[in-house]
Amino acid sequence: LLPRAVQRHRTFLATNVVTIFRASTKSFVRRHIGPRESETKAMLDTCGVSSLNELIKNTIPTQILYTKPLDIAEPLTEAELLARIKEIGNMNKQFRSYIGMGYYGCHIPSPILRNVLENPAWYTPYTPYQAEISQGRMEALFNFQSMVTNLTALDVANASMLDEATAAAEAMGICVRQTKKKVFLIDELCHPQTIATVMTRANSLGIKSYIVDLYSKDTNLYTDELAGVLLQCPDTQGSVIDLTALTDKIHKQGGLVVVATDLLASTIIKPVGEMNVDVAVGSSQRFGVPMGYGGPHAGFLAAKRKLVRNLPGRLIGVSRDTEGKPVYRLTLQAREQHIKRDKATSNICTAQALLANVASFYAVYHGPQGMKDIAADVHHKTTELASTIQGAGMNIKNKYFFDTLLVECNPSERKGILTRARLRNINLRVYPGDEYLGVSLDETVSQKDLSDLKWVFTGAHNIIPDVTGIRNLHDSKLARTTPILQFPVFRDYHSETSFMRYVRKLEILDYGLCNSMIPLGSCTMKLNAATEMIPITFPEFANIHPFVPFSQAVGYQQILNELENDLINMTGYDKISFQSNSGSQGEYAGLLAIRRYLESIGETQRTVCLVPSSAHGTNPASSKLAGLETVYISSTDVGSIDLDDMKRKVDTYSDRLAVAMFTYPSTNGVFDESITDMCDIIHNSGGQVYIDGANMNAQVGLARPGDYGGDVSHFNLHKTFCIPHGGGGPGMGPIGVKKHLIPYLPTHPVIETDVDTTRSLGTVSAAPFGSSLILLITWAYIRMMGPNGLKQASLIAILNSNYMRRRLEEHFKILFHGTHGFTAHEVLLDIRSLHIKSGIDATDIAKRLQDYGFHAPTMHWPVHDNLMIEPTESENKKQLDRYCDALIQIKKEINEVVNKEYPLDDNVLKNSPHSIPRLMASEWTHPYTREKAAFPLPWVTQEKFWPNCSRVDDVHGDRNLILTHQDLIKADSQTK
Amino acid sequence: LLPRAVQRHRTFLATNVVTIFRASTKSFVRRHIGPRESETKAMLDTCGVSSLNELIKNTIPTQILYTKPLDIAEPLTEAELLARIKEIGNMNKQFRSYIGMGYYGCHIPSPILRNVLENPAWYTPYTPYQAEISQGRMEALFNFQSMVTNLTALDVANASMLDEATAAAEAMGICVRQTKKKVFLIDELCHPQTIATVMTRANSLGIKSYIVDLYSKDTNLYTDELAGVLLQCPDTQGSVIDLTALTDKIHKQGGLVVVATDLLASTIIKPVGEMNVDVAVGSSQRFGVPMGYGGPHAGFLAAKRKLVRNLPGRLIGVSRDTEGKPVYRLTLQAREQHIKRDKATSNICTAQALLANVASFYAVYHGPQGMKDIAADVHHKTTELASTIQGAGMNIKNKYFFDTLLVECNPSERKGILTRARLRNINLRVYPGDEYLGVSLDETVSQKDLSDLKWVFTGAHNIIPDVTGIRNLHDSKLARTTPILQFPVFRDYHSETSFMRYVRKLEILDYGLCNSMIPLGSCTMKLNAATEMIPITFPEFANIHPFVPFSQAVGYQQILNELENDLINMTGYDKISFQSNSGSQGEYAGLLAIRRYLESIGETQRTVCLVPSSAHGTNPASSKLAGLETVYISSTDVGSIDLDDMKRKVDTYSDRLAVAMFTYPSTNGVFDESITDMCDIIHNSGGQVYIDGANMNAQVGLARPGDYGGDVSHFNLHKTFCIPHGGGGPGMGPIGVKKHLIPYLPTHPVIETDVDTTRSLGTVSAAPFGSSLILLITWAYIRMMGPNGLKQASLIAILNSNYMRRRLEEHFKILFHGTHGFTAHEVLLDIRSLHIKSGIDATDIAKRLQDYGFHAPTMHWPVHDNLMIEPTESENKKQLDRYCDALIQIKKEINEVVNKEYPLDDNVLKNSPHSIPRLMASEWTHPYTREKAAFPLPWVTQEKFWPNCSRVDDVHGDRNLILTHQDLIKADSQTK
Repeated sequence: LLPRAVQRHRTFLATNVVTIFRASTKSFVRRHIGPRESETKAMLDTCGVSSLNELIKNTIPTQILYTKPLDIAEPLTEAELLARIKEIGNMNKQFRSYIGMGYYGCHIPSPILRNVLENPAWYTPYTPYQAEISQGRMEALFNFQSMVTNLTALDVANASMLDEATAAAEAMGICVRQTKKKVFLIDELCHPQTIATVMTRANSLGIKSYIVDLYSKDTNLYTDELAGVLLQCPDTQGSVIDLTALTDKIHKQGGLVVVATDLLASTIIKPVGEMNVDVAVGSSQRFGVPMGYGGPHAGFLAAKRKLVRNLPGRLIGVSRDTEGKPVYRLTLQAREQHIKRDKATSNICTAQALLANVASFYAVYHGPQGMKDIAADVHHKTTELASTIQGAGMNIKNKYFFDTLLVECNPSERKGILTRARLRNINLRVYPGDEYLGVSLDETVSQKDLSDLKWVFTGAHNIIPDVTGIRNLHDSKLARTTPILQFPVFRDYHSETSFMRYVRKLEILDYGLCNSMIPLGSCTMKLNAATEMIPITFPEFANIHPFVPFSQAVGYQQILNELENDLINMTGYDKISFQSNSGSQGEYAGLLAIRRYLESIGETQRTVCLVPSSAHGTNPASSKLAGLETVYISSTDVGSIDLDDMKRKVDTYSDRLAVAMFTYPSTNGVFDESITDMCDIIHNSGGQVYIDGANMNAQVGLARPGDYGGDVSHFNLHKTFCIPHGGGGPGMGPIGVKKHLIPYLPTHPVIETDVDTTRSLGTVSAAPFGSSLILLITWAYIRMMGPNGLKQASLIAILNSNYMRRRLEEHFKILFHGTHGFTAHEVLLDIRSLHIKSGIDATDIAKRLQDYGFHAPTMHWPVHDNLMIEPTESENKKQLDRYCDALIQIKKEINEVVNKEYPLDDNVLKNSPHSIPRLMASEWTHPYTREKAAFPLPWVTQEKFWPNCSRVDDVHGDRNLILTHQDLIKADSQTK
Repeated sequence: LLPRAVQRHRTFLATNVVTIFRASTKSFVRRHIGPRESETKAMLDTCGVSSLNELIKNTIPTQILYTKPLDIAEPLTEAELLARIKEIGNMNKQFRSYIGMGYYGCHIPSPILRNVLENPAWYTPYTPYQAEISQGRMEALFNFQSMVTNLTALDVANASMLDEATAAAEAMGICVRQTKKKVFLIDELCHPQTIATVMTRANSLGIKSYIVDLYSKDTNLYTDELAGVLLQCPDTQGSVIDLTALTDKIHKQGGLVVVATDLLASTIIKPVGEMNVDVAVGSSQRFGVPMGYGGPHAGFLAAKRKLVRNLPGRLIGVSRDTEGKPVYRLTLQAREQHIKRDKATSNICTAQALLANVASFYAVYHGPQGMKDIAADVHHKTTELASTIQGAGMNIKNKYFFDTLLVECNPSERKGILTRARLRNINLRVYPGDEYLGVSLDETVSQKDLSDLKWVFTGAHNIIPDVTGIRNLHDSKLARTTPILQFPVFRDYHSETSFMRYVRKLEILDYGLCNSMIPLGSCTMKLNAATEMIPITFPEFANIHPFVPFSQAVGYQQILNELENDLINMTGYDKISFQSNSGSQGEYAGLLAIRRYLESIGETQRTVCLVPSSAHGTNPASSKLAGLETVYISSTDVGSIDLDDMKRKVDTYSDRLAVAMFTYPSTNGVFDESITDMCDIIHNSGGQVYIDGANMNAQVGLARPGDYGGDVSHFNLHKTFCIPHGGGGPGMGPIGVKKHLIPYLPTHPVIETDVDTTRSLGTVSAAPFGSSLILLITWAYIRMMGPNGLKQASLIAILNSNYMRRRLEEHFKILFHGTHGFTAHEVLLDIRSLHIKSGIDATDIAKRLQDYGFHAPTMHWPVHDNLMIEPTESENKKQLDRYCDALIQIKKEINEVVNKEYPLDDNVLKNSPHSIPRLMASEWTHPYTREKAAFPLPWVTQEKFWPNCSRVDDVHGDRNLILTHQDLIKADSQTK
């Protein structure tokens, strides 16, 4: 009886109900991937292959093809993912953290949370290279630069750094370049992670760097050799000291002064710029950005004007468009790594635009008085706590402080305090030894929190406060006397209505993935799914300080472990380090690991880094930062690495060869057949192989760099693994290494990792696991895609690229292809001969694409006058077709110029983009119609993203450097 | 020693630190209120008063001025509010609810959650009266109408109803009007709340209505009297029955057939339209809208085409603009209450646009196959559960079912099931008696949930399923055979990338408060703060079924209690009922309470309702719905109620007088001096006073309707208390009553309230406490504003209105003012004489405002050819000035027409609004320049919201009814 019943039930389910339900419509894969099944078929036809398998056979060399299924968990649905991440979040413990050390609790104003941080219009755009469709976030970043310079009382600032520690390391670089000297002194009262990061960088660059007590008279200042010093104010223990005298002394020694400072403190204490320092660095995290177990947050770097051309990172400046209207643009790009390559002074490319925008909106929202009030409130509560602690008989060791106290206590007091802290779920800063504890307050400290803190420190509720020796900042010479943020933008938007409209006004000026495709070659602008983004503002993850004990971060450790296992499986490496918080930092860390390894086997003479000429500018720049000498390898006509040239270089440099950096598939969009041979040659010569993971999107599930020869790779999680580009950051660049390199991975001075500190390369970022918070995005993507979905994504990325290639090859010269005539996940249009023939160049085409409502591909790279298109798997056929249609139509427009139908100096291409006011001006002198300019194809009429201005004048902007509202006011007054 | 130390500490804090910190910048009040202190001063100057107090003295009659401070808790900061609401949320218990009865768990797709529900661009717009700047949400609502008609297989549907129960009540009205008969039969297997709501409505309208078993042969069908019947399919117990035979039978009796149905079920079961029913009603809640303890959700109403002119609510239709481009608009507005007044067939105005949009996007996102898969999955799991329950020896009483089972069990089984359910935190439907339990499944039921349910029902884990008699829908005649949702919009956007872009494309077509001001008179378009909105998507509130026991809704009850106390304090009433989920339902409920009260004192003959001619169209419509006879009172020239006329009417109707409805301050924007006298007169004549709370925003903290004579009022929480208008709903209209009316307040058939059911007016909404979820918004607003902030808001609302009055009075005729020449919170521009002089009317001005980037004020109401401006307190002086500048400039443009500078048929006003394609067309034949049309003032160039089309042709739209994608395809094929 039993079996029959079971049998009946099974049959019933199988025949009648189960067959109806197809899991596929529930699956996230169909949300992430653009083309539907029917589209895929049509596209394969166009490509002349019958299946995705056949496509891959024609694209990826058989010897490197990974044929096993990925050993990754089966996919979760979006709902399951959200439930699972809540569970994992609950494994973290949300203590009240008063650890300080550069990370503070803060309130994200709700209109910023909702309308900026959680809004795809702000998080999906790319770096604002296309100025005409990026005015919104450039204004926000311009506000950031203005805020930083104003609060630090310096002249210029960039549009954000990766974090405070790397900003300090970059500042050291400025000192060395500016003074051309090689000694850099670090005051011992800087944050330990800053010291570690700077020391690591100094070491790799051959800068002599020492940790000293700069306030001591006995300290050797290395006269004649001194490039500069790094100080911190308020220092890591919380003390505020006027640095003017010390600064003068250092200047007399010929050195520059870099100070790590706090922007909130600067609203009420004398800003470091008024102490005559040369460079200020720090973090803007506490301006509305969650701690997130270490990041992402926007670091900052401000400096005196004379140092401007030495600044790393990106600068937003004001220029004008062809109509003379003032517009923002990325200025002084000639400084950047993608231009200067091995001459670059920094390898920073991605910064923290999204977080810088949050921080600048925080200042816009609160305004000068609001900011000062927040600071005064924090300071007031700290003062109250200090006097209570003194009332209980302990000493406050800071003469002046802002928000951080160094509390001296005896061992039994200390024990009692720590016991009570645990009872109340409170984290304090625990100094080594048994005499001191630290506590840092922030804007989230409520009266109840303060009363808890008093009890924790004193064990009682009615301590009579003792204010002896506690000095109040406001009445002291350390009080800030100069006004802050006296620009309209910081004063006009304090009601939420006006603030919301300001955010919206900027938002709709910008083109993001929520508008249309951004097929930037080598940037992998794919879907950043809402479900992937939702967890990053869960308090369970957002509110965790990076220096809490592991027992409070079990959820994060779970994510890190799962992600490490998955990345290992996808890449063929043996271990992953998550510390490097951008691709460039990953390169730097990977190269350093190689250097340490080579040293360990006694090969210290190996300092040559081979880089193909087609490599990202970041590669040679990173090589330089890692203290290596860059030697270029040329490319063949078909876009492969010139194997002969490589062999020659290997022979030439022989036992000086340290490493070769290959991007694979290459930046020319090709899976080079000889990759394994190349790796073998390098290995046989005693060198190591660095595979740049920028193009990982073409190979997840299809090929593993750790298998075909890589010793180390970094992975741009903001490309392949769905972290949004944020309008120019955040990024995240963990590295994978083979076993022999594991001992040399990064460590951290505050949080123990499983790497041996004595052999480690050192520290490359402020936080032990980089920008941990956004790892959730990558984790969510992998969990929802599952092994098949991930592979499918790679296949469709390759299909999309080849489909565009086929559609475009009749109309444009396609530069490179693999052995069988297929490209990888991107395709290069060569405009050079067309340019010669027509006078129209790649830039004209890029700008004209805006008139079709599109964002340009990558321009002029890896070959000048080229357009490099990477569609990604998230774009469907309709969108690809429209993009192709636009390019084909543009080709016709170019032919019209060639055929003299329109003059070279007055045609839709040279005059592009066409802004609305220009198109509707009464005066219209052009030989083409307004309609031809504005609506060149029928569908453009229905759906068009409008450029906000005419073409931006780059030369004018570089000649007239306007980097802040201060500069703008000055320029205006000079014009009058 | 002790006192001295304390002393020192206090002095220290007082002099040195505390003084620096001013709480004000932390306060939410400065976020909510637009004008800064300095602006307020300048505006008072313009108004010719020295202080806000003086302004109020000149505006509000002394005798009604409320001089006490509000007895409301001191304000919380935004951060404190968010912490507090989390605490309260945690007081709710999130059981798994399988209660069904019209409310089901569902997954909100993340891109809809983030990009629609949580996005101010979707929730801050108003009803799409200004078609040219509302195309986005009209397309989404058009999709909703298409989805509803397609899934129900009927011809026409409106753009949402308040809920399923009121939709059924409205459908009864259709039957009665269409057949001109007065008997309506309700099948007993409808949801109890639907039955109660329909019975209440029938009762008030004098319709004879009976609850019967329509399937029984013995049921009296009242031949010749039968207007119609209400059935439910699947019925409340879950059974699915083919209604075709029954429908035929009813039709033969001359009655119409209304069926309450389920949209998800309709994707796989034979839709009710294919059973020949006339009207379908229901809820679209389970299409991505959280249960929220009862709402808001979008109800729907679909019907055969012949009933279209009898449909209540709003309809989106396709018309064309002056260029011939197809565009959406609100169609057949002549049916609506604001036109038909006491001839109206429904008092519905606000519907549930935002939630209808969510539901329609849910269908767009999932598409036909996705929807069918969800339904099949739910049905499959239900089948599996059913066979397991039978395997354990209980009976499933449904022959066919979709997602709901009626389980027959013996008392001891039942007890065991309920005990196990409690152990697993599971809610089932508990039928009266001890024989039955119900269970309803939904898309959120996971395998684990299903296994829990099996255990709960069987007490075991290994029950052998028994499928005897369990029929599978798919193979039966009840299976749906017609395809669903075969329109491109439901097929093209299934990848998240394309979906996100579609949402964004629509979003940016629409003008909301996030763009600029919407000074709609009587609509109070104030800030909907992000912090107020955040809690509504907290799962602690969103996931609560309305019929859970109070013990699981302690948090909600806390909110309801606090809100009731606060509203009582602000309004002077004795009790609040939250059941009515819109203003119009509040009016209806309030009037019914009065009727019940009058009946209770033997005054059944009192059925006359006095309504001033200036009242909202809703007032007379509600009066009609409540079974009252409307008699109008005229206004005086200065906008007051004509006291003499009122007295005459009171005398005339004498002991037939039931109630007078006053809006106060009046719809003419004036605080009438004689309000207390008027109330006295009504009371002395034995009548009751209904004060319409639409204009409550002028008096919170300043005057209380319960004090100056009101017996009952409704409060539009979506006006005065910050619930966003959602582009045409949700609204929320609780009522306040004086003590004598308390026994007659609404009750609920499922959830006990503290009102005596025998005396209660009955039930007016499906959910016991209306749209409870959005009460959080109002609660948050009140908590953050505090007593002073709320009063301040009223003061500034009045100041803003008077400031605009002063700026505009030189240029326009201002229609009304109070005794001292001041207006309340709105100001009326009289265009009549200007129209006669110039030929330009109020509509031309409204449309021309779009060219300035502004939304028009309320038009043609309360006086034809008028513009009624209500700026609210959230707009700052800069914005008010720009709006005034625009109106003043428009006046100049009108003068140009008067002066014949431009012809009457070709000027910037008559041709407004000017869309982008028109402005940049090569051909330009107008006598004015493109610039004059597009950028009439300098700041318009910098910041302009562009209309999406030219002026919409209203007549064409009403003549050619295109209400769905089906209609559109048909119309297109006819044109070809």
